[in-house]
Amino acid sequence: MMVSPLKTAVVGATGYAGFELTRLLLKHPRISPPLLFSRQNDDDDDPMQELAAAYPEISGNGSYPLRPFSWEALAREGIELLFLATPHEVSRAWVPEALQRGVRVIDLSGAWRLRNKLHRAVYGFADADSGIVSGIAESAIYGLPELHREQIASAQVVANPGCYATSIITALAPLVSSAVVDVQRGIVCDSKSGVSGAGKRPTAQTHFVEVADNLSAYSVFGHRHTGEMLEQLQLQDDQLWFSPHLLPIPRGILSTIYVHLKKPMTEQDIEDILRGFYSNSPWVRIFGTRLPQIRHSLHTNYCDVGFNVANDGQRLVIVSCLDNLMKGAAGQAVQNMNVMWGWNECEGLN
Amino acid sequence: MMVSPLKTAVVGATGYAGFELTRLLLKHPRISPPLLFSRQNDDDDDPMQELAAAYPEISGNGSYPLRPFSWEALAREGIELLFLATPHEVSRAWVPEALQRGVRVIDLSGAWRLRNKLHRAVYGFADADSGIVSGIAESAIYGLPELHREQIASAQVVANPGCYATSIITALAPLVSSAVVDVQRGIVCDSKSGVSGAGKRPTAQTHFVEVADNLSAYSVFGHRHTGEMLEQLQLQDDQLWFSPHLLPIPRGILSTIYVHLKKPMTEQDIEDILRGFYSNSPWVRIFGTRLPQIRHSLHTNYCDVGFNVANDGQRLVIVSCLDNLMKGAAGQAVQNMNVMWGWNECEGLN
Amino acid sequence: MMVSPLKTAVVGATGYAGFELTRLLLKHPRISPPLLFSRQNDDDDDPMQELAAAYPEISGNGSYPLRPFSWEALAREGIELLFLATPHEVSRAWVPEALQRGVRVIDLSGAWRLRNKLHRAVYGFADADSGIVSGIAESAIYGLPELHREQIASAQVVANPGCYATSIITALAPLVSSAVVDVQRGIVCDSKSGVSGAGKRPTAQTHFVEVADNLSAYSVFGHRHTGEMLEQLQLQDDQLWFSPHLLPIPRGILSTIYVHLKKPMTEQDIEDILRGFYSNSPWVRIFGTRLPQIRHSLHTNYCDVGFNVANDGQRLVIVSCLDNLMKGAAGQAVQNMNVMWGWNECEGLN
Amino acid sequence: MMVSPLKTAVVGATGYAGFELTRLLLKHPRISPPLLFSRQNDDDDDPMQELAAAYPEISGNGSYPLRPFSWEALAREGIELLFLATPHEVSRAWVPEALQRGVRVIDLSGAWRLRNKLHRAVYGFADADSGIVSGIAESAIYGLPELHREQIASAQVVANPGCYATSIITALAPLVSSAVVDVQRGIVCDSKSGVSGAGKRPTAQTHFVEVADNLSAYSVFGHRHTGEMLEQLQLQDDQLWFSPHLLPIPRGILSTIYVHLKKPMTEQDIEDILRGFYSNSPWVRIFGTRLPQIRHSLHTNYCDVGFNVANDGQRLVIVSCLDNLMKGAAGQAVQNMNVMWGWNECEGLN
Repeated sequence: MMVSPLKTAVVGATGYAGFELTRLLLKHPRISPPLLFSRQNDDDDDPMQELAAAYPEISGNGSYPLRPFSWEALAREGIELLFLATPHEVSRAWVPEALQRGVRVIDLSGAWRLRNKLHRAVYGFADADSGIVSGIAESAIYGLPELHREQIASAQVVANPGCYATSIITALAPLVSSAVVDVQRGIVCDSKSGVSGAGKRPTAQTHFVEVADNLSAYSVFGHRHTGEMLEQLQLQDDQLWFSPHLLPIPRGILSTIYVHLKKPMTEQDIEDILRGFYSNSPWVRIFGTRLPQIRHSLHTNYCDVGFNVANDGQRLVIVSCLDNLMKGAAGQAVQNMNVMWGWNECEGLN
Repeated sequence: MMVSPLKTAVVGATGYAGFELTRLLLKHPRISPPLLFSRQNDDDDDPMQELAAAYPEISGNGSYPLRPFSWEALAREGIELLFLATPHEVSRAWVPEALQRGVRVIDLSGAWRLRNKLHRAVYGFADADSGIVSGIAESAIYGLPELHREQIASAQVVANPGCYATSIITALAPLVSSAVVDVQRGIVCDSKSGVSGAGKRPTAQTHFVEVADNLSAYSVFGHRHTGEMLEQLQLQDDQLWFSPHLLPIPRGILSTIYVHLKKPMTEQDIEDILRGFYSNSPWVRIFGTRLPQIRHSLHTNYCDVGFNVANDGQRLVIVSCLDNLMKGAAGQAVQNMNVMWGWNECEGLN
Repeated sequence: MMVSPLKTAVVGATGYAGFELTRLLLKHPRISPPLLFSRQNDDDDDPMQELAAAYPEISGNGSYPLRPFSWEALAREGIELLFLATPHEVSRAWVPEALQRGVRVIDLSGAWRLRNKLHRAVYGFADADSGIVSGIAESAIYGLPELHREQIASAQVVANPGCYATSIITALAPLVSSAVVDVQRGIVCDSKSGVSGAGKRPTAQTHFVEVADNLSAYSVFGHRHTGEMLEQLQLQDDQLWFSPHLLPIPRGILSTIYVHLKKPMTEQDIEDILRGFYSNSPWVRIFGTRLPQIRHSLHTNYCDVGFNVANDGQRLVIVSCLDNLMKGAAGQAVQNMNVMWGWNECEGLN
Repeated sequence: MMVSPLKTAVVGATGYAGFELTRLLLKHPRISPPLLFSRQNDDDDDPMQELAAAYPEISGNGSYPLRPFSWEALAREGIELLFLATPHEVSRAWVPEALQRGVRVIDLSGAWRLRNKLHRAVYGFADADSGIVSGIAESAIYGLPELHREQIASAQVVANPGCYATSIITALAPLVSSAVVDVQRGIVCDSKSGVSGAGKRPTAQTHFVEVADNLSAYSVFGHRHTGEMLEQLQLQDDQLWFSPHLLPIPRGILSTIYVHLKKPMTEQDIEDILRGFYSNSPWVRIFGTRLPQIRHSLHTNYCDVGFNVANDGQRLVIVSCLDNLMKGAAGQAVQNMNVMWGWNECEGLN
């Protein structure tokens, strides 16, 4: 029996994550070429353009027009799944209408990731969690398939996780949930990210001369992804320290995570917990005591996890790596789509 | 006899070249700490600030306030030499008044480098070369001390050369002026520059993710520095090809230059011409047939020149390197100041 | 009718080109997983190992054992096509036996690329072009499908081109063969390459600290790839200048090529010649007057070509970019395999 | 009264730290140009050479011959201070003889930094701490002037600290010594270093292609510098976690340090402790709550320290930066020389 391919659309295909997503969708075997929307009323007067104008790397294989977004166009084309690679304010404003129109959404922004209003406050949403919005916030599913596979399968709105959060939650969830971690002593998460995580808009912070030959810490004790980590790992605010750093590389994240164990454990104990937890998760690779490096997972959808245990058996360092545009954004969005439509989780990602 | 130190001022100390210049001037043994001016009516409401706010690297050794520019402040402080590290339109507008007030100027922009009106056209000056401006344009001296040492010594306005132009003119002047080059066959200049040459303002072109892991050619047949090269080397438009490229490094220029010789020459012949021409020039190093690399001259005021001759003795490749912020901008400005005041050319540059 | 998949083997899978090739072959839809051979008597005592030990990035999807090379193993497994990603001396020594055994070969080294004994001299082969070797040298086909598609289809030995040579020949062949270039005035080829082109063995030249923040020219007038360019473009020694440079990036080549035209031509003329020549070549993209950059073709098999014409209509600058490990090595080898077996040229390369 | 300049010698001037040291010594106003020794019986047959052959960047200002080391040459030239930029085994073997001959030593290796035999074990010295060696080990002074200024002044052997150790001890010493840190809860030190810290010898780990676009953790729970930190901060083994990482930059270290405070403190409290501790230390800059970045201290002898306090007032993150070749090696060695001879600590370092 022929199954007709899924119809999808992407808003924000010219950003780094949106472009990566578009490339993945164009190669996915079970969907039609996605419709590419720019947001209406963009800065330039003639928002309609060709994606290859912004990204010559995809030229040579056909045309990829960007059209101004409208709900009418969406309806006319029969779009069933909408990917939002948009600022969180836009995602916040658009998702209610998408749901009303019966379109499922995978949102790559931070708009719908948080349940706790205090955590949400860092985004300063203008809607002040009004009725309908509150309902969506409650029903949106946090799109980490390794944790929420079943709920994602039937979700209307999937909140695709933050890149830092993915690297840290993936590393910690097996250990925290198996109750071997002494969370009272605090978990330190020291993360380092490539520059594409900061977005495509040119700023003083992303100027080549400021980033090259440099490393800088930022948003210590105040990064927006912290709330996701706390909620997903069910930790208290003062139990997790998160310090992000800006690396002089285009893409990739490495998180070094420091954990006290409640009682002495062997390396085999730790490896067993990790392997057990992810036995059905094709996109997490357990490296054991050989530590993963950023380049191992670049341009893949893997999150790689390795670790070392101190001689005392009670101090554990976990290293977790991923590509912030793949498992940290676009790859994970495709993985979520696969789960939502009941396809193999690896479809279109190899 | 005590000589009182020279009083100088810098406009534009927060740009890359202006900051490098400020650091050099602060260590120069014969001058007072320079006055640092920001341009009036800058974007932010309170233009007065501390240089260390923009460049924490100079903190810890005192205070370097930036004040809004005014001619009155300049007069009150008795400034004798004004460095302009400003956009060329600003330099164009301000130099006439500086001269009227008897202040000598070293201008780091392209405003006063060109004699030929056709070459000047690329800058599109609004003044349309009015009377006084024309006079200044004629009397301004091109600030390459290796070529114009004597005229610089008595100049009122020194037009500090472009970074690319310095690397190419330094390599070619000895050979072109000794008439061994077959200029009719064309001279190819393929230059590669670090990103600081593009300035500090964040743009799509200087975003880390666009520059890293990349190389791009730009402004082929149309770069503004071409006029300087043609005028200083006395070449016709079609005798010199200049193609700049943007390197994924913060600073440094390497120019690879391809020259046909009129008749076969040995490597020793070439080396003799180069060494003879620069025998009294401490800031040009002749590497002979060992080719210089960008890192050899980084953070120095040297222009390094090496070369290879083909077996046929008639084809010559010259490689020239310099630090675009030093010999290509701020270092050369200090060298020019040294020449203007009759000091040793190396003063304050080691 | 089921066609049984092609059986291939790779020698040298742990080098940069060999590993890239292995990854491509593992995903190719028409072949069996390739046998991976290390060369016998390698330095370490136990040469048998797992490819993932050297390249953790491919772990997680099965096992890729490396076995010591033997002709017996090759025969036992029924290998029909042997890829040699080996030093040129090894390729030189092994190809005669492969041919005797009826195995076709794609050789990624420089061993079989040159017809002219003078050009070949730079490799200093010990065999001194003995009888059988001479025969192979004459019959080996230069593996640039865009030039020699038909001969490759029936070749026993395909000499996969050098990375620099591919970038320069692809740019120049259409223009030189259409006789619009004034070759007497000389063609200047200024190429810049990422470090993977220098191979995986650690040397002083590939140490991170020597390469980073740097650019260096090397082998000016003496690079081994020059012979390939001269032979394929049918130029005299003194008609082509080739200067390679080492870029501080892992991969990618950009060549800037300077050409005198015999008579004035328009941009459209040039574009027509390029598009006409490559109308049936899916792996060459003509960018027109928008110049390609290195990152546009990274991780693809494209060679991108763009150009600018001077106002005089007689001076042409061509910019050509490719990924040295893809179109410059492994991708081109797969493209050659596709041609040899009559498959679509793009098979396994998208 | 004229003071005759100090006579010094450097062994190991061709390594990264040794070369940086040589450049500093050549500009130091109170010493003669240092004698440069290579170690005898080096790999190459003719060890005598010119430093500019290895480092063309210092050419153009005179000759810097490297001579084979001998005690006789040292005595003949009247050397009073010997800098050893040598492997720790060499430093271990040579220092006893230097002391016997009355020559003071600043050793840049790890040979004499540790008092605790268990910590020393990681170096695996062949001498097994024999009598004379034990005595030296006890009397050698750890060369962090900010902690041991007085003892360094009269020391015969100064053990120049490790680069990582300097960054971490400088950040922690004020807080640990003022007893505000809850050391029982563990101190996490996550450090990131440029590649020059790994030395000049080419290895698989320092190959450009392995380092670029990458980040990797290494020697977690097992790095040699850990012993220095524990001894200088008087901590127990399990109270300090140290994880170094290799950054894709040539030089610079950033350490992010996580500390639990015994009771809530304000940012002002922390700043007061840091400023008080370093009030007489010109080479430590306290940034307050603005975090230092690696580029701020590059090419300087500063160690920069900034910090952030969590809202709960009990969790403190300190960020410490330095140039591993300057404050982390050669600059600190010159600072130690200044202290040993009673000169201003900044002499020759600005």
